[in-house]
Amino acid sequence: MEFSEWYSDILEKAGIYDLRYPIKGCGVYLPYGFKIRRYSFEILRKLLDETGHDETLFPMLIPENLLAKEGEHIKGFEDEVFWVTHGGKTPLEVKLALRPTSETTMYYMMKQWIKVHTDLPLKLYQVVNTFRYETKHTRPLIRLREIMSFKEAHTAHATKKECDAQIEEALTLYKAFFDEIGVPYVISKRPEWDKFPGADYTMAFDTIYPDGKTMQIGTVHNLGQNFAKTFELEFETPDGEKDFVYQTCYGISDRAIASLISVHGDEKGLVIPVDVAPIQIVLIPLLFKGKEEIVMDKIKELNKTLKSEFRVHLDDRDIRPGRKYNDWELKGVPLRIELGPRDIENGHALIVRRDTGEKITVEYSNILEEVEKIVSMYKDNLKIKAEEKIKSFITVVDFESDVNALSEKVKAELLENKGIILIPFEESIYNEEFEELIDASVLGLTTYEGKEYISVARTY
Amino acid sequence: MEFSEWYSDILEKAGIYDLRYPIKGCGVYLPYGFKIRRYSFEILRKLLDETGHDETLFPMLIPENLLAKEGEHIKGFEDEVFWVTHGGKTPLEVKLALRPTSETTMYYMMKQWIKVHTDLPLKLYQVVNTFRYETKHTRPLIRLREIMSFKEAHTAHATKKECDAQIEEALTLYKAFFDEIGVPYVISKRPEWDKFPGADYTMAFDTIYPDGKTMQIGTVHNLGQNFAKTFELEFETPDGEKDFVYQTCYGISDRAIASLISVHGDEKGLVIPVDVAPIQIVLIPLLFKGKEEIVMDKIKELNKTLKSEFRVHLDDRDIRPGRKYNDWELKGVPLRIELGPRDIENGHALIVRRDTGEKITVEYSNILEEVEKIVSMYKDNLKIKAEEKIKSFITVVDFESDVNALSEKVKAELLENKGIILIPFEESIYNEEFEELIDASVLGLTTYEGKEYISVARTY
Repeated sequence: MEFSEWYSDILEKAGIYDLRYPIKGCGVYLPYGFKIRRYSFEILRKLLDETGHDETLFPMLIPENLLAKEGEHIKGFEDEVFWVTHGGKTPLEVKLALRPTSETTMYYMMKQWIKVHTDLPLKLYQVVNTFRYETKHTRPLIRLREIMSFKEAHTAHATKKECDAQIEEALTLYKAFFDEIGVPYVISKRPEWDKFPGADYTMAFDTIYPDGKTMQIGTVHNLGQNFAKTFELEFETPDGEKDFVYQTCYGISDRAIASLISVHGDEKGLVIPVDVAPIQIVLIPLLFKGKEEIVMDKIKELNKTLKSEFRVHLDDRDIRPGRKYNDWELKGVPLRIELGPRDIENGHALIVRRDTGEKITVEYSNILEEVEKIVSMYKDNLKIKAEEKIKSFITVVDFESDVNALSEKVKAELLENKGIILIPFEESIYNEEFEELIDASVLGLTTYEGKEYISVARTY
Repeated sequence: MEFSEWYSDILEKAGIYDLRYPIKGCGVYLPYGFKIRRYSFEILRKLLDETGHDETLFPMLIPENLLAKEGEHIKGFEDEVFWVTHGGKTPLEVKLALRPTSETTMYYMMKQWIKVHTDLPLKLYQVVNTFRYETKHTRPLIRLREIMSFKEAHTAHATKKECDAQIEEALTLYKAFFDEIGVPYVISKRPEWDKFPGADYTMAFDTIYPDGKTMQIGTVHNLGQNFAKTFELEFETPDGEKDFVYQTCYGISDRAIASLISVHGDEKGLVIPVDVAPIQIVLIPLLFKGKEEIVMDKIKELNKTLKSEFRVHLDDRDIRPGRKYNDWELKGVPLRIELGPRDIENGHALIVRRDTGEKITVEYSNILEEVEKIVSMYKDNLKIKAEEKIKSFITVVDFESDVNALSEKVKAELLENKGIILIPFEESIYNEEFEELIDASVLGLTTYEGKEYISVARTY
């Protein structure tokens, strides 16, 4: 099955996201999908909270004059902003934009709060819905008109040095997050012509989907003093001078969820990383006539034991075990434990791993410890497999001084190997002309195994 | 100080909510306020999750034709809906409403999911922002154009009996929630002329603010089959017949936060219920020359001990203790613990309660247990005080058959005692004419100490 078909199919069948809503690019997070989202964003929240970021909630509507305040910024967004023009039947005096992102909202408010260097640093974030009037083909959780979950962090600092250090902190945080949900990534410094509108520069995380196309899954922007000058974010330094703050912002969206689904899934369905799995272990009783009670008693006991550490579900539906296996494999539950009369007699239980399909017979008396061990192997394996997959999609080519020969080579590699093609950095080809020539996207400057490359790929 | 002045003042000074945003009725949840919101809604989420509700996330935009599908419903909302008419510079073919509430969105989707009785019951909820084009005076967290936090639950059932039972469950859940955040309430069945547009009937929770006006803080609606018929929510019964589902919906908003602030606060500032306090205990070292290290070592140890069970903050700022006391009293931190060299010598610590101001010297060796005891007393006291306050605002009057005499009496009581006036139920006065006569609002039918009354009040 082709990847994009597999993807749409699994979202529906596994109960992740339903796109049958009568507005293009708007859909519903279903209960199972919502739980994956909840656990994923809880990991992100924890990382942010632990590093001194404060969660907040800013308004969704932005007056036109506020959105337009930063020239580069509005140019980047004006074609894709939804506009509110009426309240009831009354035309509004000032049009209101549905936030495409919250720089203008947040920096307007920061002006009220920042007066003196002791007000800094300010490190805020929020998890909100944002909106883009996408005219391109939309894709569930990937390219939406309502981005249902956008974690955007915005910081302000007294010095350039602290601001640069914040960029490093943000990169470290995002690495930790993607590592924890097992999504592999390549980090690039985006080219000038593809940076965030209004930023000094943009660092981006890309992952590679099974079809070999890259997906931007996180961005970190160094805004320098650009927005600060527009929004008059001036403060008094320790010397009593006036200076503008230095700012960063960084975001992660629903694409994190789309990616953990896409990267790990297989032909049987989802394979969910343990930490974000709504159900981590499913228990299946194998019932035989006359032995039902023994099995049910034992499996309820097991349920209780495992619940102390894991999210467990006991599937006691009155259907064949085989159908249950299929259901939970489709939903990507990491471990399945089967328990029948024979297992009980022998003091055993059978554990089946979703990632490898491996069946492991364990001593029942020692089951919590055994499960912990297998869960840990499952985690490691998911990371290793994902790393291997992304590596198999990275191709390094030699530089050629004949730009046409080079572009032909890159195009051939893109066709053959897909994924990311790394070209040793040369100033002369690092431009939009070359990008057009290869008919693909320049992701930017990428450090790979210690060397600097220009990375190119076909992107989502 | 007058209540409404106190309220605006405390939101700003305690860092709850900042309304200096250039759109009326839209503001910012500040870090401290956001934490109160987070803990409060976590309590609500837990109650809902434990009773089989599934969290979801539905689109924010509603096409005009979908919002207008239910006649009564749209009539109730059409004057206060914000309309999106443009994407970029392109006029949209169908206007899109910013959700004022999500019945139409959710029931459109439920039609895709409900086919047969085994698909029922369906119990969903979401916590989202909703919008009203308020033309009246707006008030932070009370009457907003962007309601930043609306928990709306929507359920569908196979029988009227199950639907009615769901109303009871919802009332029980909401009672538990308001009890836990210490907000007292009176429950009324709203009169026909004030029920939710499209509902069979509406049950409402009102609390009473310090100025004697009531505030609606939660509503539970029995929708019967009204929406089901409009949205064609038909299913196959166990007998193979067709029937429409029975529905309920119930909501709680930012007003829960506004109320826990308003009900408990005093002239020194906030008094926050323990379970939703961002900081539950603040530690203040009393430093004297030459003894700084002894005190700081001990208080860091204390910090570590208490952190195992509580959200603790060690205030080691280089300012006078008196200023620290004021800061944390303003922010409503439940307990303050002071520790100085003399306390350490004597093996003591001093605990100060925010609710009563009481100072309690405790044995340091036993401090975790002592704190637990005091926290439990604090919780009880907050509930008792809030209950007493609301009771002092409830006045029962005798019925008079002369409607003019009765209305004069009610008006006099409203002027004198404010709060809620309870009139023994009589069909003849339960109408809008009487409501106009008393120049106040009829909250509805209220059972109080076993008897049925018509409750009236001045409301927010």
